[in-house]
Amino acid sequence: MDRAEPRGRAGGVRETIRCWIWWTGKYSLWHATRRNKSLGSTRLAGRSLQRRLEIIESCVVLFFSLVGMLAEQFLADGPKLQLYNFAEKHWEDLMNWQHATMYLFFGLAATVSLVLHTTEAAPLALDRLMLAVAFFNEGFLFLYHLHGRSMLDVHMHQLLLYAVFGQAIVAFLEVFHRGNIILELLRCTLTILQGSWFWEIGFVLYPPSGAEWDLKDHSNMMFVTMCYSWHLAFAMLVVSVLYCTVSCVVRSRLKRTPPMEMGLLKSRERDAESEDDVL
Amino acid sequence: MDRAEPRGRAGGVRETIRCWIWWTGKYSLWHATRRNKSLGSTRLAGRSLQRRLEIIESCVVLFFSLVGMLAEQFLADGPKLQLYNFAEKHWEDLMNWQHATMYLFFGLAATVSLVLHTTEAAPLALDRLMLAVAFFNEGFLFLYHLHGRSMLDVHMHQLLLYAVFGQAIVAFLEVFHRGNIILELLRCTLTILQGSWFWEIGFVLYPPSGAEWDLKDHSNMMFVTMCYSWHLAFAMLVVSVLYCTVSCVVRSRLKRTPPMEMGLLKSRERDAESEDDVL
Amino acid sequence: MDRAEPRGRAGGVRETIRCWIWWTGKYSLWHATRRNKSLGSTRLAGRSLQRRLEIIESCVVLFFSLVGMLAEQFLADGPKLQLYNFAEKHWEDLMNWQHATMYLFFGLAATVSLVLHTTEAAPLALDRLMLAVAFFNEGFLFLYHLHGRSMLDVHMHQLLLYAVFGQAIVAFLEVFHRGNIILELLRCTLTILQGSWFWEIGFVLYPPSGAEWDLKDHSNMMFVTMCYSWHLAFAMLVVSVLYCTVSCVVRSRLKRTPPMEMGLLKSRERDAESEDDVL
Amino acid sequence: MDRAEPRGRAGGVRETIRCWIWWTGKYSLWHATRRNKSLGSTRLAGRSLQRRLEIIESCVVLFFSLVGMLAEQFLADGPKLQLYNFAEKHWEDLMNWQHATMYLFFGLAATVSLVLHTTEAAPLALDRLMLAVAFFNEGFLFLYHLHGRSMLDVHMHQLLLYAVFGQAIVAFLEVFHRGNIILELLRCTLTILQGSWFWEIGFVLYPPSGAEWDLKDHSNMMFVTMCYSWHLAFAMLVVSVLYCTVSCVVRSRLKRTPPMEMGLLKSRERDAESEDDVL
Repeated sequence: MDRAEPRGRAGGVRETIRCWIWWTGKYSLWHATRRNKSLGSTRLAGRSLQRRLEIIESCVVLFFSLVGMLAEQFLADGPKLQLYNFAEKHWEDLMNWQHATMYLFFGLAATVSLVLHTTEAAPLALDRLMLAVAFFNEGFLFLYHLHGRSMLDVHMHQLLLYAVFGQAIVAFLEVFHRGNIILELLRCTLTILQGSWFWEIGFVLYPPSGAEWDLKDHSNMMFVTMCYSWHLAFAMLVVSVLYCTVSCVVRSRLKRTPPMEMGLLKSRERDAESEDDVL
Repeated sequence: MDRAEPRGRAGGVRETIRCWIWWTGKYSLWHATRRNKSLGSTRLAGRSLQRRLEIIESCVVLFFSLVGMLAEQFLADGPKLQLYNFAEKHWEDLMNWQHATMYLFFGLAATVSLVLHTTEAAPLALDRLMLAVAFFNEGFLFLYHLHGRSMLDVHMHQLLLYAVFGQAIVAFLEVFHRGNIILELLRCTLTILQGSWFWEIGFVLYPPSGAEWDLKDHSNMMFVTMCYSWHLAFAMLVVSVLYCTVSCVVRSRLKRTPPMEMGLLKSRERDAESEDDVL
Repeated sequence: MDRAEPRGRAGGVRETIRCWIWWTGKYSLWHATRRNKSLGSTRLAGRSLQRRLEIIESCVVLFFSLVGMLAEQFLADGPKLQLYNFAEKHWEDLMNWQHATMYLFFGLAATVSLVLHTTEAAPLALDRLMLAVAFFNEGFLFLYHLHGRSMLDVHMHQLLLYAVFGQAIVAFLEVFHRGNIILELLRCTLTILQGSWFWEIGFVLYPPSGAEWDLKDHSNMMFVTMCYSWHLAFAMLVVSVLYCTVSCVVRSRLKRTPPMEMGLLKSRERDAESEDDVL
Repeated sequence: MDRAEPRGRAGGVRETIRCWIWWTGKYSLWHATRRNKSLGSTRLAGRSLQRRLEIIESCVVLFFSLVGMLAEQFLADGPKLQLYNFAEKHWEDLMNWQHATMYLFFGLAATVSLVLHTTEAAPLALDRLMLAVAFFNEGFLFLYHLHGRSMLDVHMHQLLLYAVFGQAIVAFLEVFHRGNIILELLRCTLTILQGSWFWEIGFVLYPPSGAEWDLKDHSNMMFVTMCYSWHLAFAMLVVSVLYCTVSCVVRSRLKRTPPMEMGLLKSRERDAESEDDVL
């Protein structure tokens, strides 16, 4: 733990940026599927387009998790695939290994999702289970990550766990309630919350202004807790603004379509949806 | 925390009264929807009236949460929107900010409910999710609110959390089982429990008679635990009396309606209900 | 707590016996409904008989909980409805008051069940919710009951909580999955477990042989944990033997009925069951 | 606890090997039912074959749990059915008794499964409930097994509990979602995880190389946590490779069947499946 402290600052910021990337990827996926669902009744997005988007998204996530793993291993202070230093008898850069393990699980989830949407080898719900496992694994590693840190540091990472385990639970519920828009919106909200909270952790623990926070002051801890609520409110705001924008755009487009054709399209869409359920 | 102690007494009573108002609002909502559901078979309450009641209720909640937020900020000892006191280097009235945050989330829930019932932009179940988030946020802030208080104070607030998290869980279950009367009655009971327990907290921690309770006596703690059970029994009693009264009134009215018309009304009601499920 | 110690032994045994009675009542209810469900296809038990049995059972439970409350209050060392001793400034017999509160909730559950099965004023699932609340309340009071006791005493009561909260959860699940035989058998098993574990607690803490157990020895604690597993296995055995006996008896009776009539009966039974679901 | 230490090393390895056997049994069951489900559309595996396989598997599990119980009791250092040593006033080999109790519950689950599949006396879902109870009991005994051990030892056993309670929860969910392949794959994964983690515990606590691990070093604990994630990834890999192999083999066989006959087989399979649901 001690060895990780000196390069902690860079690590925190790095984490933040990477998570932000991941979140953007995830979020645009959400945007895309959202649009798909609604636009299903127009000719803009059928089942095949939706699948293509899912495949592209899986590839992007897979690519970023590979990059993440390689970066954790081979950048400046990485362990370079060496796990145990037999000379000095200690584990080599456990932090980096843990981050790489987190990426590994998101990479696995993306691989499974890729296989599912290209070959239909297994029920689609498996991708949500893999996502749940990846989030659970992330939370699990963070949970045992906190030994010996200062009070505020521990507290902020514990708050992060609410978002991470929340995502895991929602993803697991989606195994049984696939396509439930409430759960999907909730998962997006929690993903944004996780991303913005990573940024906040970086901001508090390694303040850019240079004025250090007192990590043992209880009123700081209370402020941070409240701040977490504000991040949640902010995340809900972002998701709802985006959701409203997309559904308004879709509606205005639908109004321009002749009414008779809409009926046909609707039944076509229903087929696509039931197909989605069966697969 | 220390700074909050002197004005704690007023705060506790204020909290109580506000929660009581909130509870009354919520409870009459329940009353109204209950009546709606049952009276659906008479001409007194159709789907449009139900919607109008939901809109009115959302407005009332929104109004009270705005008032609550403003009161917390601008009344006598409020922070007046100042978050950090740079001169004295401490956070300004964190308690008030936390209470304002709680109101904010109930305000958000009311806003979403208002939008849902006026525009039908999103699935109706979203209002229960927002309610669940608002209750969860309330419990979450209370949970990290308790540092450094005396044993009995902490214990009474922890008991409160049972009701608050219970409400959050029940509201979340209602996302999937909307219109389940068992869950709705349970939520009402927990809301009354929360309200009456707020009053009890005020009564114990700032006794009107002036005779202070020993906040470190274990037998006081045991009594308070049992007292919580009694509040729960009382809340169940209130809910069941009201439920019985309403259903008796409805039944007696239905008896006066000619039987043939009732069949027609029943099928109309079924339409309304299925409409409710679809939306 | 200290005052409760001298009369603890009698109290423990009394508790055990009362719980045993409650368990027997509950268990024969199970037996009866089990038989009802299975015998539904014979002429022995129709819907009306089932309802009559439920009403009788509710009355019995109500009677015993009234007796229990009165006994706790007015027997030799009871508080006689006096809650606070103003002369000596302490709470009067909190233990008895807590036990009376537990009985109160079971009495409430029985009252609600009685009202539901006689008047059909509310959905039937409410009786399971009340049962869940009663069990939850029991576990809740036990949870805050344990301060200042010796290690083994605390441990044995904590083990009891597994059974009590298990019953609460199963009863709550039955609100949504009413009539699921797996859940009903599980609830019976946990009820027997609770009853036999009460007896075990009495046996260990107030041994009839007079040879006191060392309440601080860790190997005693490990033995007690394992013993809990054995009680669970025993409870499962009792439930399965009874279940098999009843279903064998029912089958042998059914074989004696002429086959043609059976078809008629089967459809009649299906009606009864769907009626059960609707109500 | 002290007495168990000297023979702990052998016990740990023994546990590992036994669990491995159990896991292999369980896993081949999974393999078989998996194949059954998929091959249902060929002539290789109908409902009767599936039942026969379940019966065989139950017998194997029953046999191994009997062997396990006898081995724990009568091998070299077993208690030979003596529970309490009255001469020296201590419990006899509580560890062995606890392991025997774990086997007992798996034996009970196998017995119930055997009875269910031969006589159809009760709903099939009962076998999953018994499995859930057996896993819960295993986790429960491990939970109170850890007093007074060194930090790393406790931590590794706590990690094991994630897998064990995970299995219990998944098996309980299967009571309501029987035949859900996602849950079945998850349960298999957790079973392999448990098996390989048992091996890892043996490897770390009783290292074959002789170089002892420092059981109080925090970085060892962090490595072990990460290692648990790798075991999970490994288990997921094994399950997915096997799943893919089986489904590829089945597909290649199906391609060789003439298309017309397939239609007939499909409807036959659907019958079998609905039969499975009813029973």
